Amino acid sequence: MEHKPGYITVVGSAALDTIETAQGRVENCLGGSVSFVGAVGGLFAPIHIIAIVGDDFPMQEYDFLKERGVNLDGLEVAEGKTFHWEGKYHDDMNQRDTLATELGVFEGFDPKLTKEAMRAEYLLLANINPELQLNVMTQIKKPRFTVFDTMNLWININLDGVKKMLGKVDMVTLNDEEVFLLTNENSLLKGARKLLEFGPKYVVVKKGEHGSILVGKDGAPFLCPAYPITDPIDPTGAGDTFAGAMLGYLASTSDLGPFNVRRAVVYGTVAASFTVEAFGVERLKTLTHEELNARYRTFQEMVEF
Amino acid sequence: MEHKPGYITVVGSAALDTIETAQGRVENCLGGSVSFVGAVGGLFAPIHIIAIVGDDFPMQEYDFLKERGVNLDGLEVAEGKTFHWEGKYHDDMNQRDTLATELGVFEGFDPKLTKEAMRAEYLLLANINPELQLNVMTQIKKPRFTVFDTMNLWININLDGVKKMLGKVDMVTLNDEEVFLLTNENSLLKGARKLLEFGPKYVVVKKGEHGSILVGKDGAPFLCPAYPITDPIDPTGAGDTFAGAMLGYLASTSDLGPFNVRRAVVYGTVAASFTVEAFGVERLKTLTHEELNARYRTFQEMVEF
Repeated sequence: MEHKPGYITVVGSAALDTIETAQGRVENCLGGSVSFVGAVGGLFAPIHIIAIVGDDFPMQEYDFLKERGVNLDGLEVAEGKTFHWEGKYHDDMNQRDTLATELGVFEGFDPKLTKEAMRAEYLLLANINPELQLNVMTQIKKPRFTVFDTMNLWININLDGVKKMLGKVDMVTLNDEEVFLLTNENSLLKGARKLLEFGPKYVVVKKGEHGSILVGKDGAPFLCPAYPITDPIDPTGAGDTFAGAMLGYLASTSDLGPFNVRRAVVYGTVAASFTVEAFGVERLKTLTHEELNARYRTFQEMVEF
Repeated sequence: MEHKPGYITVVGSAALDTIETAQGRVENCLGGSVSFVGAVGGLFAPIHIIAIVGDDFPMQEYDFLKERGVNLDGLEVAEGKTFHWEGKYHDDMNQRDTLATELGVFEGFDPKLTKEAMRAEYLLLANINPELQLNVMTQIKKPRFTVFDTMNLWININLDGVKKMLGKVDMVTLNDEEVFLLTNENSLLKGARKLLEFGPKYVVVKKGEHGSILVGKDGAPFLCPAYPITDPIDPTGAGDTFAGAMLGYLASTSDLGPFNVRRAVVYGTVAASFTVEAFGVERLKTLTHEELNARYRTFQEMVEF
């Protein structure tokens, strides 16, 4: 059965990252949520990127996205510097220190959807200020499925905005600490169920190397181990890759049934495993849909019993 | 297809534990590896327990094991005090402080298998001094499948004994820290594969609430999430329960094929989830085979996609 895939709009950050891990250091490499989401989601479905960069941004870095059919009409180029993040990961890659956050033009980001982006069936609101996310929700026409991401900063300084967003989306993706922070629940399962009461149909709890849990309003939770990577290089962008592949798979299959959502989580899982194998988006630049499918099948072999 | 189950011999500790967790405190409750292994393994197959207790041991506490058909002929009662362990768990139950370890008669433990115990087809060497484990290996006749457990203490003070044991068993169960300590590998998968080179057919890496990984000489590793427990009370004995149910399932099915070993790991997983729902062996005292099967089926629902 062939589907004409519905298309995706992603709203988030574009950045130039300086990253240090035990495996090395890279300076000013392509980063930001839309870079990862565009790179992997573009393997599944057409994507419109809504983001902002400064006039220092090396636009040729996005050539590989264009080749993947990613639409950059909504990428605003503003006078000033591109958002720059600098971080250093501990030997335990679940821990990192942020060394610098220079917002640059990102500080004035006021996302405006292009006409086509407004009509997307699938919407991914990557981690930005919830006020901007709420603004996007007034612009988008009739999305079939909306995924929302956030971070501890917004939970701490704009809990009300985060809660409002939870009432407007189909799925939220959070890491374990964010679930604790939002719900005061020690149990991830209890916390995720509490979050469902705010409105979303699904909560995905991301646990990094320990996998993820998908909790929905009906049925049993879905326990998804991580795809084991023996030599991780850099976890930056793994969560964005996860969300991008997940929504990309849903868009490409046009099936929002609970078992297809589980399969989408598995695609997110295997896609994220490629991201951590190199710095930044490097591995995603050459990634193919066939490689994703092959690792999906290997994952199936790793969990069947 | 009905199998007459092969029987199991387990060699390990019997103890009286004082345990404090965020959920409460119990004093001198039944503990030690053989208590957990007997309790859960006895639901699957006949078990012979080889252990030592002092003359202060409240033997009626083992009545429930006898009712389950556990053979206590190899339980030595010696003059002196029963092994006593006292520990306090942190809010994060993966962390605990040992407050007291009073070996008592356990210090002089010199395991002697009864005639019947020597002929067991399945052998579980729970965590004791590897010299004693090596001694048991000279007594057992022809086990079909031997599982071996150890701890950081023995890896630190008798690495040679631990390595010798690895060369004599079919499976070793270790937690993530023990794998790091034994192999100096940061990757659990790499570490587990390194351990296979010492001889065992299988390595099980236990990651507590994050599940386990089964690595064998052939085929893909098996990724097994933990069964999610929303209100854990006490994790003491979860690892012994895991091993006991796993070997019990293998003994009851008499099938040592790789997929049945995966199913055995799942039985170990769901059995361990019952143990953490109460202090010590309390929950296992009333556990039935039907409850185990029901949770096994729920687990299947939680991982299929």
